[in-house]
Amino acid sequence: MSTTFDVIVLGGGPGGYIAAERLGHAKKNVLLIEADALGGTCLNVGCIPTKALLNAAKTYEHAVHGAQLGVRVDGASVDWAELQKWKNKTVATLVGGVGAAEKKAGVTVVKGYGRFDGPGRVTVDGTTYTAEHVILATGSVPVMPPIPGAADNPRVLDSTGMLSVPEIPARLAVIGGGVIGLEFASLFAMLGSEVTVIEMLPEVVPFMDDELAAQLRKGLADIDVKLECKVTSIDGGTVHYETMAGTAESVDADVVLMAVGRRPAVAGWGAEDSSLEFSGKGVVVDDRMRTNLPNVWAVGDVTGRSLLAHAAYRMGEIAVANILDPEAFRRGEIMRWNTIPWAVYSNPEAAGIGLTESQARAKGIDVKSVTVPGYLSGRFVAESGVKAPGAAKLIWDGATGQVLGIHVLGSYASEMIWGASVVLETEVSITDLRQVVFPHPTVSELIREAAWAAQA
Amino acid sequence: MSTTFDVIVLGGGPGGYIAAERLGHAKKNVLLIEADALGGTCLNVGCIPTKALLNAAKTYEHAVHGAQLGVRVDGASVDWAELQKWKNKTVATLVGGVGAAEKKAGVTVVKGYGRFDGPGRVTVDGTTYTAEHVILATGSVPVMPPIPGAADNPRVLDSTGMLSVPEIPARLAVIGGGVIGLEFASLFAMLGSEVTVIEMLPEVVPFMDDELAAQLRKGLADIDVKLECKVTSIDGGTVHYETMAGTAESVDADVVLMAVGRRPAVAGWGAEDSSLEFSGKGVVVDDRMRTNLPNVWAVGDVTGRSLLAHAAYRMGEIAVANILDPEAFRRGEIMRWNTIPWAVYSNPEAAGIGLTESQARAKGIDVKSVTVPGYLSGRFVAESGVKAPGAAKLIWDGATGQVLGIHVLGSYASEMIWGASVVLETEVSITDLRQVVFPHPTVSELIREAAWAAQA
Repeated sequence: MSTTFDVIVLGGGPGGYIAAERLGHAKKNVLLIEADALGGTCLNVGCIPTKALLNAAKTYEHAVHGAQLGVRVDGASVDWAELQKWKNKTVATLVGGVGAAEKKAGVTVVKGYGRFDGPGRVTVDGTTYTAEHVILATGSVPVMPPIPGAADNPRVLDSTGMLSVPEIPARLAVIGGGVIGLEFASLFAMLGSEVTVIEMLPEVVPFMDDELAAQLRKGLADIDVKLECKVTSIDGGTVHYETMAGTAESVDADVVLMAVGRRPAVAGWGAEDSSLEFSGKGVVVDDRMRTNLPNVWAVGDVTGRSLLAHAAYRMGEIAVANILDPEAFRRGEIMRWNTIPWAVYSNPEAAGIGLTESQARAKGIDVKSVTVPGYLSGRFVAESGVKAPGAAKLIWDGATGQVLGIHVLGSYASEMIWGASVVLETEVSITDLRQVVFPHPTVSELIREAAWAAQA
Repeated sequence: MSTTFDVIVLGGGPGGYIAAERLGHAKKNVLLIEADALGGTCLNVGCIPTKALLNAAKTYEHAVHGAQLGVRVDGASVDWAELQKWKNKTVATLVGGVGAAEKKAGVTVVKGYGRFDGPGRVTVDGTTYTAEHVILATGSVPVMPPIPGAADNPRVLDSTGMLSVPEIPARLAVIGGGVIGLEFASLFAMLGSEVTVIEMLPEVVPFMDDELAAQLRKGLADIDVKLECKVTSIDGGTVHYETMAGTAESVDADVVLMAVGRRPAVAGWGAEDSSLEFSGKGVVVDDRMRTNLPNVWAVGDVTGRSLLAHAAYRMGEIAVANILDPEAFRRGEIMRWNTIPWAVYSNPEAAGIGLTESQARAKGIDVKSVTVPGYLSGRFVAESGVKAPGAAKLIWDGATGQVLGIHVLGSYASEMIWGASVVLETEVSITDLRQVVFPHPTVSELIREAAWAAQA
């Protein structure tokens, strides 16, 4: 095998594997280096396995609570071992799919730990590969805060360990009320665990619009969320924390999930020995994903700009577009950080894009906003009833009418939000949004209802 | 009560009630006339009750087939009487919601059969109301073809009767493989009925893209679909039909659903005595919803242009915009018939917007298309497995790159398709669509996969 390529991609997660695939289809000679399974955190221990588990839990939850719809089950249970098999099969299938896609694109895949030796050079197991361009896509790792009693405590798991916990815990304590914490909290609450979430900040999911985050928190059935509480120590399965008022409290759990966040993986692959520029957040990149080094690009979590798989995809594509054509940025091939949607797959779901109300206010914009409740959607009522948690919120610029943010809570939120990406990408105004025809009856119509409520 | 208004709206279905509500919020003095319950066919005996039933059936179906996900249920059953209560409660809640919305908008509602007496005049129970404008929104009625043995046969029901059938039929024959026929077929197949669909045409859902319609048909589990078969007579519960080859066959059923379509309700409310222009399809309107008579507008099913509730909403809004401002059409306030999405809520779901491949070819466009399978979506695989029916298809103009049609099959199709409305409304090209960030993992990403597959 030749050791010379057009492009070397270091890391086979979403940012890396998409970049390699797109380059391969563009007839570039590409080397993709991955130490572990292709697909990275997202596919192996992130987005995908959690969604397999959450869907099963929702199926169980709907079956158990179907009586009001006339759906009766005498006995329902979840066979955790069987569900683990389904999850593992899903991951294996999709990892195989990524491998097949790379092969189809003509990408050379090398398994091993790659070391970045400066522009155009990456070494794996003693072999040095060279290329005109290098794309760094080394991802991120879970943050393990130095809480006394957390390290080497067999009851304390990170998200990876939690995915394969041997049995459904009777009592689960989740440290951190961000997306990862809430998805696991919701998953195990649906499966019958007694769940407590301990969050240091005044509200869950800090990047969410405050109003909808509060509604999401209240909508998470059977989860005890403790806000503004700081974990001080862990003793076996007992989590000690201090409330905002300074009171010491504790919660006993069989399993403690540490979900305080992830950080860019900037160590262990040579970056520290290079002249690559870092900020406190990760490898510094511009809007074309260029680092400070010539022909060295960085995409995905390692940039710290967004730790979402689909943001990594897009960063990978942006790097590719600008590698293939230095003028690509003129065709809009730059990262637009404000048009990256997000979704929380808890029950209920939440999703959004663009500015929150407080972010918009902080920019000094003449902010207008409107929030409508879920029961304005006929399908929402037909499926979940009038009292289920649900809402849509629009934020727009009062001076220009431009839509700045779209936020939704409730069933199908994750699947409807890509439309909001198109709205923000094409700079549709609140007036124009009223002209868009939504199919009836759908929960997505809540976005339309909000646009019209803005006028009424 | 005064009998003089700014606008009289004849018919309280989706087209009529939205028009009245929007006019009320614009401070117009509005009379809304409805003979039956507010909400029309859609809310009372159409979209909404079918979705309440379909969601319950899907909940049951998912519970029963959850074993591979580790979800085990013993003795699952559907209590049809209880489900009927849920459906009826849903309808009552939403009908109440429409009434409350009209009240809030200051709309006067009169119950009774209205008779159109020409421009500006409508009579109800002997009282004649006058107004500057009249909006005709009388809806549609099910077509009952003159098949020998169908009339006065207690086993033969239309969609309205089927919604409240006393029990789940052991054997159901559905005459007509359009949206209504397939939704009921899917509903009762999930609930355990042995279902046969008899369709005269070569494929189900004639307005769907042929390729995806065929995939939908094959994806409808446990439904025997007989294509190119013409029903010749019905004898009790036995439906006699003739195959394309001329062979006489029959199917025995406990209930026969007649679902061959609906037609505009153009009789019985004075239209025939007026000089209103009709085509074979309904009241003739232009793109501003103007009829041939001055200040007489028609919206919704009665126009025969589209028999979809959300198309009726939009027609109502277009009429309102042009009543409020004769120059509104210059701001885009005209019907764009090519940007009305549709959805079929069967299991699997299907949805689409714009041109099908054959429609595009018939226009002489340099048609490009790409279809990707459901298993390219990680969420799809995590929830439904690789073999479940699913696909996304894009149609675009090879010369300009403009996206002409987006068609999807599989879970969440109905909730993701509004984004495609925005794509078509804003005339996004296939190249631009690749730049839109979709949340991962979602089934909606299939649309993105298709856009990229178009390039690869």
